[in-house]
Amino acid sequence: MNQQRALLSRRVQAVRGSEIRELLKLLDRPGMTSFAGGIPDPSLFDLDAFGAACASSLQGGKALQYSTSEGYLPLREWIAERMREKDIACGPEHVLITNGSQQALDLIGKLSLDPGDTVLTAAPTYLGALQSFRIFEPRFDTVHFRDGGASAGGARAKLMYLVPDFANPTGATLDRHDRVAALELAEEHGALLVEDAAYVDLRYEGEAPPAIASLDQRRCGSIEAMRTLYCGTFSKTLSPGLRIGWICGPSALIQRLVLIKQAADLHTSTLGQWVMHEVAGAGFGARLALARDTYRARRDAMLEALDRHAPTGMRWTRPKGGFFIWATLPHGVDAAALLRGALERNIAFVPGQPFFADGSGSNTLRLSFSLADQQTSARGIAALCALVEERLAEAHAV
Amino acid sequence: MNQQRALLSRRVQAVRGSEIRELLKLLDRPGMTSFAGGIPDPSLFDLDAFGAACASSLQGGKALQYSTSEGYLPLREWIAERMREKDIACGPEHVLITNGSQQALDLIGKLSLDPGDTVLTAAPTYLGALQSFRIFEPRFDTVHFRDGGASAGGARAKLMYLVPDFANPTGATLDRHDRVAALELAEEHGALLVEDAAYVDLRYEGEAPPAIASLDQRRCGSIEAMRTLYCGTFSKTLSPGLRIGWICGPSALIQRLVLIKQAADLHTSTLGQWVMHEVAGAGFGARLALARDTYRARRDAMLEALDRHAPTGMRWTRPKGGFFIWATLPHGVDAAALLRGALERNIAFVPGQPFFADGSGSNTLRLSFSLADQQTSARGIAALCALVEERLAEAHAV
Repeated sequence: MNQQRALLSRRVQAVRGSEIRELLKLLDRPGMTSFAGGIPDPSLFDLDAFGAACASSLQGGKALQYSTSEGYLPLREWIAERMREKDIACGPEHVLITNGSQQALDLIGKLSLDPGDTVLTAAPTYLGALQSFRIFEPRFDTVHFRDGGASAGGARAKLMYLVPDFANPTGATLDRHDRVAALELAEEHGALLVEDAAYVDLRYEGEAPPAIASLDQRRCGSIEAMRTLYCGTFSKTLSPGLRIGWICGPSALIQRLVLIKQAADLHTSTLGQWVMHEVAGAGFGARLALARDTYRARRDAMLEALDRHAPTGMRWTRPKGGFFIWATLPHGVDAAALLRGALERNIAFVPGQPFFADGSGSNTLRLSFSLADQQTSARGIAALCALVEERLAEAHAV
Repeated sequence: MNQQRALLSRRVQAVRGSEIRELLKLLDRPGMTSFAGGIPDPSLFDLDAFGAACASSLQGGKALQYSTSEGYLPLREWIAERMREKDIACGPEHVLITNGSQQALDLIGKLSLDPGDTVLTAAPTYLGALQSFRIFEPRFDTVHFRDGGASAGGARAKLMYLVPDFANPTGATLDRHDRVAALELAEEHGALLVEDAAYVDLRYEGEAPPAIASLDQRRCGSIEAMRTLYCGTFSKTLSPGLRIGWICGPSALIQRLVLIKQAADLHTSTLGQWVMHEVAGAGFGARLALARDTYRARRDAMLEALDRHAPTGMRWTRPKGGFFIWATLPHGVDAAALLRGALERNIAFVPGQPFFADGSGSNTLRLSFSLADQQTSARGIAALCALVEERLAEAHAV
């Protein structure tokens, strides 16, 4: 065993497991109310469309053969059209297909990060991004948005990572001013900017601010000159199990990323890409409308239950889209300890600490409203709030 | 553009494109005889089995949902049973599902390689492995097998990479003595040993030597103590397009690799894994028998054509399995120049140079016999040999 440890790279020391992995295993426990993973409701998967797409994609057998590293051209064309709808002028040559947007982060980390480089992120931020970048041994600094400006620590950063819409884990959205400020800060640092748009299409109210990539393109005049890499995914809208995402960016960077992708796994599943192209083409808009209606009602039910049951001193966000509400516990209540008690009552959530690169946030937690129906959610939140009250009473008694 | 170049990591400078990518694009050209990619014959894909597996896997929708990073348990169990048939005692906890065996190499590179570390490989060796490892900035040394022993340069190596059966690109197989010698050399260096078994099941004659992993396990008494990571794939047998491979090794290393896989892309396609499990379970043996008969006949046809048409001074290997014959051109004929002429006559192959980490081998080439039927292959080899003769005559005339 010690012998084996000597065989490991330095970077592997930086790799940590995530609670989400363990929690995922609990999701099948009977009676479990899960506010844990950022997981779409499987009842929204269009099984008929996937069945038909599998059958037609298999005809002739090409979907079972090797294909090119950049991805299936008709799918890249479909995506480029969606990007243009978001005011990002591009063609298929600006799109690389990835295994979900998680792989986009790995490829971009490989593209840009040397050990010791600085990555700017919000705090808290998506822990999968922290895990992915940590492999490349960077240090992390926090981007702060205040008074219409963005600022960060003094070290010159190589990469800025943001989830501008309904962020994982906070549910917060950057407004247009924040986005421009982020771009200006990235420019100041001479950094690449990763726009992780995993949740952008799940907006339940209000008007969408422009994508950072579209603001960037407008500023610098062309997709080829921009510093933003836009990461999209079908995981939150059509199916996460197929692992299909994409990166949209300047063709010179996409070409580099294609070579990195080729070295990483040759290409994303041919069959998966053909199937996703057919399913998306057949009814993306209709599925999105259904998903929005479903998740909006669940968000409202969870917010209402929190309004009704949460003890004094507990705070939470009111997201306009996505899957997540971010809660801050009253002083003296620890989220990890709360989780152990909650699991005994068959309620799961994700403690907030892993979402902070610096290990702070022990009194925070992420509540996902995507999976439980309104009634279950209301009951679960009531029980969770009762547990917080108990812990609060214990803390005061000590 | 220069601004963007400043954003790239040091390692990206080491990433090169491969001819295979370009050649893949030519495969659809009408009338092209391809001896290029290591590509299975699509007429061997069992479309009916894949269709049925897609339909049944989609029932209930779980195959469209997120799943665990280690992979689908029934598939890992099926693979562990196959491993046990190869005298590698293991269970599903020793198996990680990857996106083809190419991703296995990326994950293992991340697991073990720091910049400047030494990797031992055969020369020539699979260029996709060189591409994959180069991301981690190692140096390469060559393993030489001579007189029943294995030796390499003086630098202490961290990783040894071998394709022991019907190697890509040479078609050569290491015998039992070579395998033991390789293990002893890895032990001497304190190195991990990667056994890339992509072609092992495609044996057309003779008896298989034991897997290096089984020899390792026998020497050290347990899978947990061994230094071999066995990489398998369905790409050459059932379908490459689904991108399903695996790593089998000590559970402590597999657990580390699971975390690295999670950071890389969360998990391999759920649907892909369910489908592959069903297709493999329904008739792996029968598909293998059909594939062996088909490729054996094609190998024989290509060897016969070479015997008949090759000019004096040209040499080639006689593989007992796999997809590849490795040819050395007569003195004065360059393989890259030959390729340009061959493509004009609608014949494709892969020049040998990229398979050498040190850039040697300009007079070598790889001929894949997997794709062209016997008649086409015989005609293509005759034409290629005629072209070699022409080049030879030109070289002598100069």
